[in-house]
Order: sequence, then C-alpha cells, then structure tokens
Amino acid sequence: MPDSTNEPLAAPVTEFSFLDGVKVVDFTQFEAGTTCTEALAWCGADVVKVENPKRGDPGRRLREGQPDDDPYYFHVFNANKKSIAVNTKSDAGLALVKDMIRGADVMVENFAPGTIERLGLSYDVVKEINPGIIYAQIKGFGEGSPYEKNLSFDMIAQAAGGTFSVTGEPDGPPTRPGISIGDTGTGMVMAMTIASALYKRKETGEGHRLQVAMQDAILHYMRTNFATTGRTGKPAGRAGSKIAGSQSAPKGLFPCAPGGPNDFVYISTSAANEEHWNRLLKVVGREDLLGDVRYSSPLDRQNREPEVDEIVSAWTKTKTKFEAMELIGNEGIPVGPVLDTMELNNDVTFEQRGIMQTMKHPVHEPFKMPTWPVRVDGKPTRLKPSPMLGQHTDDVLRDWLDLDGEAVAALKQDGAVK
Amino acid sequence: MPDSTNEPLAAPVTEFSFLDGVKVVDFTQFEAGTTCTEALAWCGADVVKVENPKRGDPGRRLREGQPDDDPYYFHVFNANKKSIAVNTKSDAGLALVKDMIRGADVMVENFAPGTIERLGLSYDVVKEINPGIIYAQIKGFGEGSPYEKNLSFDMIAQAAGGTFSVTGEPDGPPTRPGISIGDTGTGMVMAMTIASALYKRKETGEGHRLQVAMQDAILHYMRTNFATTGRTGKPAGRAGSKIAGSQSAPKGLFPCAPGGPNDFVYISTSAANEEHWNRLLKVVGREDLLGDVRYSSPLDRQNREPEVDEIVSAWTKTKTKFEAMELIGNEGIPVGPVLDTMELNNDVTFEQRGIMQTMKHPVHEPFKMPTWPVRVDGKPTRLKPSPMLGQHTDDVLRDWLDLDGEAVAALKQDGAVK
Repeated sequence: MPDSTNEPLAAPVTEFSFLDGVKVVDFTQFEAGTTCTEALAWCGADVVKVENPKRGDPGRRLREGQPDDDPYYFHVFNANKKSIAVNTKSDAGLALVKDMIRGADVMVENFAPGTIERLGLSYDVVKEINPGIIYAQIKGFGEGSPYEKNLSFDMIAQAAGGTFSVTGEPDGPPTRPGISIGDTGTGMVMAMTIASALYKRKETGEGHRLQVAMQDAILHYMRTNFATTGRTGKPAGRAGSKIAGSQSAPKGLFPCAPGGPNDFVYISTSAANEEHWNRLLKVVGREDLLGDVRYSSPLDRQNREPEVDEIVSAWTKTKTKFEAMELIGNEGIPVGPVLDTMELNNDVTFEQRGIMQTMKHPVHEPFKMPTWPVRVDGKPTRLKPSPMLGQHTDDVLRDWLDLDGEAVAALKQDGAVK
Repeated sequence: MPDSTNEPLAAPVTEFSFLDGVKVVDFTQFEAGTTCTEALAWCGADVVKVENPKRGDPGRRLREGQPDDDPYYFHVFNANKKSIAVNTKSDAGLALVKDMIRGADVMVENFAPGTIERLGLSYDVVKEINPGIIYAQIKGFGEGSPYEKNLSFDMIAQAAGGTFSVTGEPDGPPTRPGISIGDTGTGMVMAMTIASALYKRKETGEGHRLQVAMQDAILHYMRTNFATTGRTGKPAGRAGSKIAGSQSAPKGLFPCAPGGPNDFVYISTSAANEEHWNRLLKVVGREDLLGDVRYSSPLDRQNREPEVDEIVSAWTKTKTKFEAMELIGNEGIPVGPVLDTMELNNDVTFEQRGIMQTMKHPVHEPFKMPTWPVRVDGKPTRLKPSPMLGQHTDDVLRDWLDLDGEAVAALKQDGAVK
C-alpha cells in the first residue's frame, strides 16, 4: 500500500526497561555529564535534571544574546530526561534536593572543581543522607593530577589526552578530531561504571563514589596508539587518512566523482586476505595486473603505494562514492563512503531502522537526531523530547517526594522551585 | 623515607567487584568486541575468550610472518580476561562451548556477518540452550542497512559514520581522526547496554539479543555535529583545530617553544566569562590592550581573530607548552598542552594515580598501558595480564564445567581443546 503521508516508514521502536525504577538526580551540564545521564535514560532510568530557575543547564544557551534559541545542542544530550527548576541557594530548595537525594539511586555532576562542595552537596554530605547512593563525578583533570583544579572543555581534554597528536597530516600541525570524544567518550565510561555499580548494589545496597577525568578517559580511546608506542618506543604519529606503520596497501581515501569536499571512499584491503587485491583489480578493470610480481604481496604494494593508489584512483574518480561503495563492497572488500552529517541525515534507512528518530518537542521544531544505537530484540529505544526548563517540577515533587498541590504552591511562592 | 627502588609510587589500586560472578563467553576479536568484554572484565566479570587453538584472536598476530610478536595491540584490549582454546569445528569442542553457554550470563561476538550462524551458535540456537542469556553482537553495518552484509574496520566505519567529514583543514581533504573511535566507541555503547541488561536480569532472569553496528554507534559520538546541522541546515564542516561557527576568540592551538611537532597549547577563552580575555592579556604581558574597544566582546575578537591569535602567539612562542599551561591555567583560563603518547607515557602522575599501570606478563616484557579510567572510592581497578592463547583451558573446564583432570585430558587427546 502506498504511503500517502510521505513519511518514512515508522521504525519499530520500543522502550528499554533495563533500568526501570532507577532514580537519577542529575546535576550535569554541557556534554560529558549529560551524555552519561542520557545513556542511563535511554536504558530506562528516571533521570531528573536539577536546574537553576534562571538559566538552567548552560548548554541550553550557547549563543550570546539569543536565549533558548539553540536547543539542538541541548536536545541531543538531554533526550528522555525530566527537568525540575530548583533554587539550591535557598534553604528550602537545598532541603528539597536533599530529599530527592535521600530517595535516589544515583547522583551525577560535572561542575567545575569545587562547585558541588560549595553547593553543600559534597560526597561526605550526600553519603550521610543516603549511604547507598552511587555518587558520580566527571572533571577535566584527575584528582592528584597537577592540573586537578583546572577548568576543561572537550578541546582541552583532547589536546592533553593525546588525540590532537595523532590526527592530521604527517607534516602538518596537530589537529582536533572533529568529534567531541573528550566529552561523550568520558560520559560513556562513567555510564558503564554506574550501570555495573547498580548491578552490585541491587544485591548489597552498597553505595560508592565514582570519579573520572576527561584527560584520563581519553587514554582509553587511545589504546591502539599506546600499543604502537609500546612496540616502537616512539610517540604515535600522524598519518593523514593512512594508518601509520601500515604494511599493506591499498588502504586509504580514494577520490570519487563529482569531486565535492566529501566525495571519497575509504578502501582497506587486508594483508590477511590476498583475494582482496585480486578482486579489486577486477573491479577497477585492471585484470592485466593480476599476478604482476611488482604488486604480489601486501608489502610489495605498500612499497609502491603511490603507483597502487593511482591504479585504484583512476577508476574511483569515474564513479560516485555510492557507486564505488556498491561495486567494491559487493566483492567482499572492506570499503566505506565518506559521508557528511547532511548525507547521513538524508539517508532514510537510519530512520527506518530507528537509529535516527525525530524529536517532537512542545516548543521547538521537529528535529531528527541520532538515538541510542544498540537494538534490543531487534528494536531501538524510543526517543522522547528533552525537557523544557522546569517542565517536570510538579511531577517530580509529586512522584518522588509525595508533595501535594498545596505544598508545591508554597514552594513556588517561596521561590524554592519554579 | 626515600624511595630507593626508584620505582614510581605504588598506585592505590583495588579490584572492582561490581560484576563479580557474571560469566561472559567471549567470541570477540580485534578491537570493537574486545573493548566491550574488557570493560566488563575491568568491572569484575569473569570473561573467558574462546579462541581457536591454531591462531586465536587474529588481534594477537597483526604483523605478517611475525607470529605473536605484536602483543601490545592484543594486551590493551584483552587485559583481565582468561583464554580457553577450543576447536569449535569438532563436535566435542562445539558441545563444550554450548555447555559454557548454558551456565553463562553473557555472550559477545563481533565476527563478520554470517560467521556465528555458520559456527552453529546463532541467537536462535543459543536462546534454546540458555533463554536467560544476554547475547550481544557487534557488526560493521546495521541489520536492515543496504550494507548489512559488508565487512568493516574502524576506518570504514569512521568514514561511513561521518567522522572524516568533520576532521581536517577547512580547505583540505576529509581526515581520519587518529583514534579508533569506530571500534572502542562501539564497544562502549554495547558494554553499557549489557551492564544495564544484567541489572534487569538480576530481578527477572530475562535474556535478550543486543545488536549494534559500528556505523550507527559513531552517530552517537557525532551528536554535536548533528546539532550543528539541525541549526544551520548544512553539513557540519571541517575547521582544523578551531571550532566551526565559534563566536568567541581566542580559541585554538598556539605554538610553543621549542617548536617541535606537538609543541602547542590549546587555549579556549569562554564567551560567557569576559574575565578570561582580560586575565589572558595580563599573562601575555599586554595590559596595554585592557579595555581596547577593538577587542571588547567575544564577537569583536572573533572578527579580528588573526590579530588576536598573533597577540597570544607572540607570547606562547617564548614558553614551553608546560610553562604556558601552568601560567595560563593558574589564572583560571581553560588551557591544555598538546601531549603525545610518549609524553603521556613519561608523565609519572598517571602511574601514581593508577590510571596507567604496568602489565606484568608471563612471557612478554613489562608494558605500561592505560587502564579503566574510572576510580571507585578513590581507587582504580587492578590491571591483570592479557591471557596467553589457551592459558586458562584447564581452569575454565574445572571452574565453569566441573570437569576433572581425566575428562580434560580426554578432551585434549581428542583435539577438542588445547
């Protein structure tokens, strides 16, 4: 039956219930912390952002003089959460947050060093209120590091964690990977640790303090580079889009038609499978080179890499990246087109599979965004909108703290919540 | 008391017990899958790699003609695990693996598409043996994607997931981020989901099939870039080490003495904190520019970025990156030195804090490597060596399957295990 609405096929989404009933008091902001609590929310936890009534998470307002007009950044890191607006500087507001902590399973914060203590919610205080809580902290540099009091952002952590040093052209400057691995990568190691701590706690009820630093977390994503240093005794270097020290060609980016800035395919023939090269020769119409001794082993080809790359490029330049992907991929050779965010956005297969979903927000326009990429029994989890500031104040006071309408009204009157 | 051994201070390590008692049958290889099961192992799970007796995980042997001489790569992704060498192509070997699965909590695999089914261990078969198992699969492209049968490696997944398109110089080609986020990033989303599934399962005993594709997982690490596309309606671009669309300067890399390939600091003054710029002017000895109207707002400075960068560079060039880091960082301005893997290796504070630990392996030389970066109650988890191929065959047959020495000897005689 034709789809007259012109909408993409509805994805078979579900709602993950793995962390059903887990209550998370969420003091996170920007990206590293919000990624961590969003992962918990994707998996079913009840995550409540505690935000100050004036501005909320500063990630809501990144562009000077344009309040709340830049929600895309906020949306992607705060889907499936609730928001309560509390003035923690008032006695009643702080008491209320402590009541929330008393009944919570997890608390997460990624303020600047010293802030959570000044707020009166240090681990010592919180542990006193709720000895069984998982108290998780994300900072830029580790406790005990010479830089432990320094501020950090993704770029700072990436520079100090090593990713710049291995990205870019061999003779060019260190380069920033264009993804915020310092933030999201850190959020992920913390989310994994929290989920594991919850598993144990279900049996024992035990609480713990978890701490991670962004600089330290990046080392986890640099393990291949550290392995290289172990083997060579030298710093891992930069190799453009090649792999430093590779002993097998062809491997790298190859230009495609019509020659736009992202019109390339990545081809990676394997040293372990000689057939990749032979099949590739056939795809690019160079059967004449089958068995040619100049190119017989992966290392021979590596030693003649410019020639080998030219043999392949001469053909890829005549195809679009999608044509090249199909023709090379069909022969069982590892290949991928370089895709940009617009091409990925426009590829309806992500939406059909539920990997991308459209956020339907009470105020902002619909926004298609990536969701949690793991599928459970064939289905991804359902995207719910990121909260407006204080959107769930009443709900949370009722559901978490059992306060009635009168009590909520009094708190609002006092300016403790909004 | 002076430390006469000249060894770095012993780190206060512990052993995480969050996943104590969780049994993981590990069919992973290379990096994406091994990262996932290593995360489970760091958190205390009993992870047993099932390897073929001839070659084992191909990640053990990456360099042609040099068997088992490249363990660094294998070490970093297989710490804290055990290895059993089983010939799954023999009836007895397959039966034995099925016995392991019967008593396991989790099974993970990242073979090429179709392989686990050919091995006779598809989800349908495994679910029959153990309905409560968490069965986790990592592939290159998602089920339902046009490329679902294609092979993938980190570079392929990164190209097709978008990271190349946002990395590199604005007028240069797409560039590979030098970290294997396609592999490790994917392993992390799966590890988090497994830990969450275990939490639920502790209550309900329910099993599930979990699936993730590397291309899909990368979208999760590209959320900031998708937010940019949401706001602008255009593909997120490349900006070298700048932030595309930034409305605040100075922000970026600044060259330091003595001018080596990684002698730079990243400085990121905040648009939200005007004091950053004023303090930076004092650090670089340009008090004469305090209050200069040409540079008064973040946007003014952005519009004169080359001038602003020159004001800062003139000073950073006279300092090493460590001096610049200290002098700028002490003023509360976000800053980080660009560090390479050797500098990070040589920084003893990582070892003193237990974030890096030295693997003491039965055969290979000691190797200092990054460990799980999250600390629990102030302590990181203890690093244990990666297993030799089949090192724990006897132990696992005894501890998991309760087989006595005679039964084990018979299995070895048959060639079912080694």
